[in-house]
Amino acid sequence: MIRFYNGKVITMNNGIEPEDIEVWTDGAKIAFVGKPDEKKLNETEFEREYDLNGNLLMPSFKNAHTHSAMTFLRSYADDMPLQDWLFKQIFPMEAKLNGEYVYWLTKLAILEYLSTGCTAAFDMYFELDDYVKACTESGFRSVLCGAVSGDKSNAERLESNYLKFTGKDPLISYMLGFHAEYTCDFELLKAVGELAQKYKAPVATHNSETAKEVRECVEKYGKTPTVLFNELGIYNYGGAGFHCVHMSDEDLAIFKEKGVYAVHCPGSNVKLASGIAPIVKMQDIGINIGLGTDGPASNNCLDMFREMFLMTGLQKIAQNDAAACPADKVLYAATAGSAKAMGLSDCDIIAEGKQADLTVIDLNRPNMQPLNNIGKNIVYSGSKENVKLTMCAGKILYENGGFAIGEKPEIIYAKANEIINTLKEQ
Amino acid sequence: MIRFYNGKVITMNNGIEPEDIEVWTDGAKIAFVGKPDEKKLNETEFEREYDLNGNLLMPSFKNAHTHSAMTFLRSYADDMPLQDWLFKQIFPMEAKLNGEYVYWLTKLAILEYLSTGCTAAFDMYFELDDYVKACTESGFRSVLCGAVSGDKSNAERLESNYLKFTGKDPLISYMLGFHAEYTCDFELLKAVGELAQKYKAPVATHNSETAKEVRECVEKYGKTPTVLFNELGIYNYGGAGFHCVHMSDEDLAIFKEKGVYAVHCPGSNVKLASGIAPIVKMQDIGINIGLGTDGPASNNCLDMFREMFLMTGLQKIAQNDAAACPADKVLYAATAGSAKAMGLSDCDIIAEGKQADLTVIDLNRPNMQPLNNIGKNIVYSGSKENVKLTMCAGKILYENGGFAIGEKPEIIYAKANEIINTLKEQ
Repeated sequence: MIRFYNGKVITMNNGIEPEDIEVWTDGAKIAFVGKPDEKKLNETEFEREYDLNGNLLMPSFKNAHTHSAMTFLRSYADDMPLQDWLFKQIFPMEAKLNGEYVYWLTKLAILEYLSTGCTAAFDMYFELDDYVKACTESGFRSVLCGAVSGDKSNAERLESNYLKFTGKDPLISYMLGFHAEYTCDFELLKAVGELAQKYKAPVATHNSETAKEVRECVEKYGKTPTVLFNELGIYNYGGAGFHCVHMSDEDLAIFKEKGVYAVHCPGSNVKLASGIAPIVKMQDIGINIGLGTDGPASNNCLDMFREMFLMTGLQKIAQNDAAACPADKVLYAATAGSAKAMGLSDCDIIAEGKQADLTVIDLNRPNMQPLNNIGKNIVYSGSKENVKLTMCAGKILYENGGFAIGEKPEIIYAKANEIINTLKEQ
Repeated sequence: MIRFYNGKVITMNNGIEPEDIEVWTDGAKIAFVGKPDEKKLNETEFEREYDLNGNLLMPSFKNAHTHSAMTFLRSYADDMPLQDWLFKQIFPMEAKLNGEYVYWLTKLAILEYLSTGCTAAFDMYFELDDYVKACTESGFRSVLCGAVSGDKSNAERLESNYLKFTGKDPLISYMLGFHAEYTCDFELLKAVGELAQKYKAPVATHNSETAKEVRECVEKYGKTPTVLFNELGIYNYGGAGFHCVHMSDEDLAIFKEKGVYAVHCPGSNVKLASGIAPIVKMQDIGINIGLGTDGPASNNCLDMFREMFLMTGLQKIAQNDAAACPADKVLYAATAGSAKAMGLSDCDIIAEGKQADLTVIDLNRPNMQPLNNIGKNIVYSGSKENVKLTMCAGKILYENGGFAIGEKPEIIYAKANEIINTLKEQ
């Protein structure tokens, strides 16, 4: 057992007010939350007692939309129009990737996730065996999201991946998914809907990221992507929409009715000039919200603190209301909201029996002082400098700036540079 | 002399491409920039040789608009309408401050500036003697900005402060300034204009931060704040406008003609729902731009990395153009642009004879890898975790997370908490 004591705890079970309690972990799970009496303390053997020293323990962040292996394209192509960026820079480089490259590039992303207090990624990419290897070797949790596109023949691969990765490893799960409406033909979308019925399973996909995407879908089908997906039964068992920037009232009503999560990616949405998602409207009607960074080619970092400030800041600007999208809702989205969007219902909050996916926030840094409101400090002032420790499934993978995921960071950095240099020459 | 070697240097003298050169400092200044030959190296005695180990040396950031001592109100009042925030929460608490409090609260801000690679603040506040003491004791550079408001009787104080603080200390300078149009009567504004002529000096002030401010000025004077200031000669010798969110074409033409700097504060502008400043338009017509955080009550942190991403991200959204406000212009604004806005023309770039105001950026962190484009990595991915060292006027004030400004951080944190708790009880 590991004991976290002598600090503050935000459980995310009920608001963002810190409590003076202890948290003990046993194996992958949280074993105790509360104020132990002397007897209980004396009876328990700890492999480690972590003195929080007044600092904060909270549920780790979960990144509810990303393409981890795209680390190789960080700062490779920026400050250019979206279509040029995607078709001239990103797609041609991605086409050159192989499994070994994805392994190393994912490891680089995992380092960055851990440094921002994040223990799980909802990842949509390819070369899944190598991706999974990078995650399980590191001790990092991931939900793979189906990424099929093209025609109906690809539905088989989606089903076989679903069956292959579901239950394969305690750290790995799989959600049915496809890339987006605009990269799939109608028969494939129909087949995805049929798989959702067959397995009574949720489905996740890029949804209404750009105005162009929605306009062209309406031109083609006479309806928005969300209405189309709903008619095909794709959302019958819930799921998630990534981005959800350009949503009609009808779209939002479908999300609400079907319990579909909107995964907000504000960093990517500003960098690619996609727009500002109607988060306040979603919150008002009770749509569940998760938070993600999108991939490092379009963000360019995997920093949950920056996403949190962007989430509230962009809503305040869009609503012309400094009270919009308050800190408690942001912190919830970045932790429990994201976990639920990913189907990780046992990784959402700090409670006995839940997975020990935790982070320790250093309050003894200038940006966290004074302690007027710790939860608001995290959302409005927090940064990666405040992440002292990140624990995934009971294992400490990051502590005081150092990583414990297998290879040394220097090896991973060297591999990433080698890969991008090789690809540039090809 | 201190030698920085074995790394990369962005001088900001010509774009953001790093060079493989060395930088030597001697006392407060930069003594050498380039590739030394063996003879020169052998002839020179160094008190310290800093091995950059492949990391980056660049000019430090300068925070061109802030109210440092407002650290005590960080996360004290957020998520509320602007008028309630200002009149019910901020002003009543500020009225209780005294010089000793300002000293400690400024020290807290200085810790945070240093942790973000920033060596100078353009500060508008009160209790100046105590503010200056906090800066000079810490070795931190500051430009005091006149903060008068009310009626003409206060012009005398502005002049006497200008004379008192100008040339008082190598780390301290003073710029004529006033709080804002809406807090000064016409006679005071006229008197400020007369002081500008008398001393042939630039003037800085809050300008067109909110739509309300501009609307009410037009109702009162039949013209915008900028036109009014210009007619009174306030901008005859340049100066700076803080925020500049709601600017007419005529206002922008005046800024351009008079060489007035627009100091952009995107974090505060989103948090208070003030709007998005027309930065791209300003850049297109050649207006000089600096970057600031505003005070910690309205941001809530003093993080130049977050401001840089917001600067470019908000322009991309506002312009609906992913190519808008590219990284090189952002990095320039946050370093040389801000320095120039503050009148610190010897702190802008890395060149021989300039002040040794520098920062070392750790490239061996996951968010900086791979090294596709170091300058873009800083703007789009950078964070305080990457600041390895901050040097002001040749002195290392921050290194590897530790501070060298006199009091230990723990003392400063304790004082800040004591102060806010005392003030809450009063």
